[in-house]
Amino acid sequence: MQNFDYMTPTRLVFGKGVVEKLPAALAPIGKKVLLTYGGGSIKRIGLYDKVLELLKGFEIVELPGIQPNPKYDPSVLDGVRLCKEHGIEVILAVGGGSVLDCSKAIAAGACYDGDPWDLITYKVKAKAALPIVDIITLAATGSEYDSGGVISRTDTNDKIGYIDPLLYPAVSFLDPTYTFSVSRKQTAAGIADAMNHTIEQYFAEDTTLLNDGFCESMLRSLMVNGRKCLENPEDYTARAEMMLCCTYGCNDILSLGNSPSGWPCHGIEHALSGYYDITHGEGLAIITPRWMDHILSGRTLGRFVKYGINVFGIDPSLDPWEIARKAIDATYSFFESIGIPMHLREVGIDDSRIGEMAHHIAVNEGLEEAYVPLDEQAIKEILIASL
Amino acid sequence: MQNFDYMTPTRLVFGKGVVEKLPAALAPIGKKVLLTYGGGSIKRIGLYDKVLELLKGFEIVELPGIQPNPKYDPSVLDGVRLCKEHGIEVILAVGGGSVLDCSKAIAAGACYDGDPWDLITYKVKAKAALPIVDIITLAATGSEYDSGGVISRTDTNDKIGYIDPLLYPAVSFLDPTYTFSVSRKQTAAGIADAMNHTIEQYFAEDTTLLNDGFCESMLRSLMVNGRKCLENPEDYTARAEMMLCCTYGCNDILSLGNSPSGWPCHGIEHALSGYYDITHGEGLAIITPRWMDHILSGRTLGRFVKYGINVFGIDPSLDPWEIARKAIDATYSFFESIGIPMHLREVGIDDSRIGEMAHHIAVNEGLEEAYVPLDEQAIKEILIASL
Repeated sequence: MQNFDYMTPTRLVFGKGVVEKLPAALAPIGKKVLLTYGGGSIKRIGLYDKVLELLKGFEIVELPGIQPNPKYDPSVLDGVRLCKEHGIEVILAVGGGSVLDCSKAIAAGACYDGDPWDLITYKVKAKAALPIVDIITLAATGSEYDSGGVISRTDTNDKIGYIDPLLYPAVSFLDPTYTFSVSRKQTAAGIADAMNHTIEQYFAEDTTLLNDGFCESMLRSLMVNGRKCLENPEDYTARAEMMLCCTYGCNDILSLGNSPSGWPCHGIEHALSGYYDITHGEGLAIITPRWMDHILSGRTLGRFVKYGINVFGIDPSLDPWEIARKAIDATYSFFESIGIPMHLREVGIDDSRIGEMAHHIAVNEGLEEAYVPLDEQAIKEILIASL
Repeated sequence: MQNFDYMTPTRLVFGKGVVEKLPAALAPIGKKVLLTYGGGSIKRIGLYDKVLELLKGFEIVELPGIQPNPKYDPSVLDGVRLCKEHGIEVILAVGGGSVLDCSKAIAAGACYDGDPWDLITYKVKAKAALPIVDIITLAATGSEYDSGGVISRTDTNDKIGYIDPLLYPAVSFLDPTYTFSVSRKQTAAGIADAMNHTIEQYFAEDTTLLNDGFCESMLRSLMVNGRKCLENPEDYTARAEMMLCCTYGCNDILSLGNSPSGWPCHGIEHALSGYYDITHGEGLAIITPRWMDHILSGRTLGRFVKYGINVFGIDPSLDPWEIARKAIDATYSFFESIGIPMHLREVGIDDSRIGEMAHHIAVNEGLEEAYVPLDEQAIKEILIASL
């Protein structure tokens, strides 16, 4: 078991109607608020009006239009400029993980005099960040309970995970009813995203019985409740449990004391959505079983056997290699069964830039340090198998 | 799924040698330190000297001699007096859960002008508390990651759980090597304590698949690693995993969104150790299977079946009632197998005060609100079955 140093200072306010607590939570943090959101779904579900009604008496500046795979230019740069111009005291992110990720980069950039890209690329360590409060409307990324965000830069195809303890939200509001209107496509991508977050932590060299059990519980719950959400989008209990599962995805609570795994599927997927702007959860679902195929070996067999038996209920009396292969097949089949396109070609990615992406990943993502080290050739093979 | 509002602001610093980080962690919190500890085990293992060496330059006032089932008089009262006399800025608790629990009550009492008992009994709500840092030497109570403490008052036989968000430790240091010298008796009691914390949360009306899985993982890990700790007290990996399991025991992470269970075994056990000063974990182990026997019914059968199959691996094809009874027997047998005396008579409790204790529990512990409501007669029957 590895040493660790861990703290999550975020307050989670969870359940139906909890947004009523927003003014009381926000008031001691700040009165000048940058309200960040995306393409307008929060207006369709009435949340935008609700927030403005609750925040009468606060000074609100808006940053709308934050896109999936949030962009450095214009969103982060615009947000930083607005914060500086208006003396913003707190950022209120309302939406999914992309809105929140973007808001985290803005929060750090607003307290820095230079180019915010310096912070995101760790050229300069942030000394401070504005406090962040969020209202989450999509169960997926877990950004509401972690200290990271992923920012894309279209001019360089970079998609960078920016992590700093300064970026934990102060308060995250999670009302599962706001996820009722999430589309089938985005619900499925959210399930795949959270499942992959768990898988990335489960497949590691040195894990504990406790963490293995936590991860297996997450995966079983995400599959059962994810399916229920797709069958009945207004199933409160299923939406709520899926939302809580997603919240734990990147918070380290599933892997405290494990050896680092390197999050290889994320390393690979960041290039896919950096180059092609695809939906992150779909990219992860496509990569995951191909990565599993690639890393299955005598060394990793035991992990796959445990995964297969405890997550998918595969008969433990079978030959271990058969269990492992069935487990990989079951992973693929589950993603396919919830409607995720399982080939890169289906999401608009052909073989024309495979070599370029493999090189970009090998240079930037440090996957030689992953649970099973991946060099440029290995990454290329995984990408080709995913076509 | 129930609404919840949750935050754990404690920093966990975990692993071999982490105590070296103590001065850096303590310095920004305060320089005037009340060092609290128990009967001297921290001197035997060299930790006392280590702490004093690390804290050269800090001003240290000592409160030694805190007993198991920590006492309001003299420990809490002495600690509060010392804090006020010396202008203490931070409490450093070094020892097991009792030392830390006592320190929490001192932390609140030091910031209050009246009788600290007002706070512990919630007659007055604490407005502030001194910050607390701890170094844990016993895996059991989970006090290092929760906001509660249990304080005993010998003149009234009261043993009261005092909970307030002000009481979360600022930093908890957990070095599993400090638990190598914990006796067989205390190791077993710690296993039972953490298992019961989990069971108290698992047996509830409305739970989630996720939380059920988390609890089942905790119980399996505690049994496997607990046995290893007893077989080889210096098995680092087992001691470490047991320590982390115990840390999660009372932190709510195992039951966020569950309906409240009322923690009935704790309600009953508090009277046992309040009246007879027995070891808390042993009292819980004795009560747990008798309480289970009492609450097994058509309504609760499903919980017991799930518990039996997922925690003890009982054959799911058996009759549900048989699975449930085997699960209760397995709970009893596990506690017995790790050397816990499983009858109240073995820990010095006869039938002479059963009625008085049952009445005290019924009046003070609110068990009419438990998962299965317990009135005075029910409590008496559970106590008699435990003799």
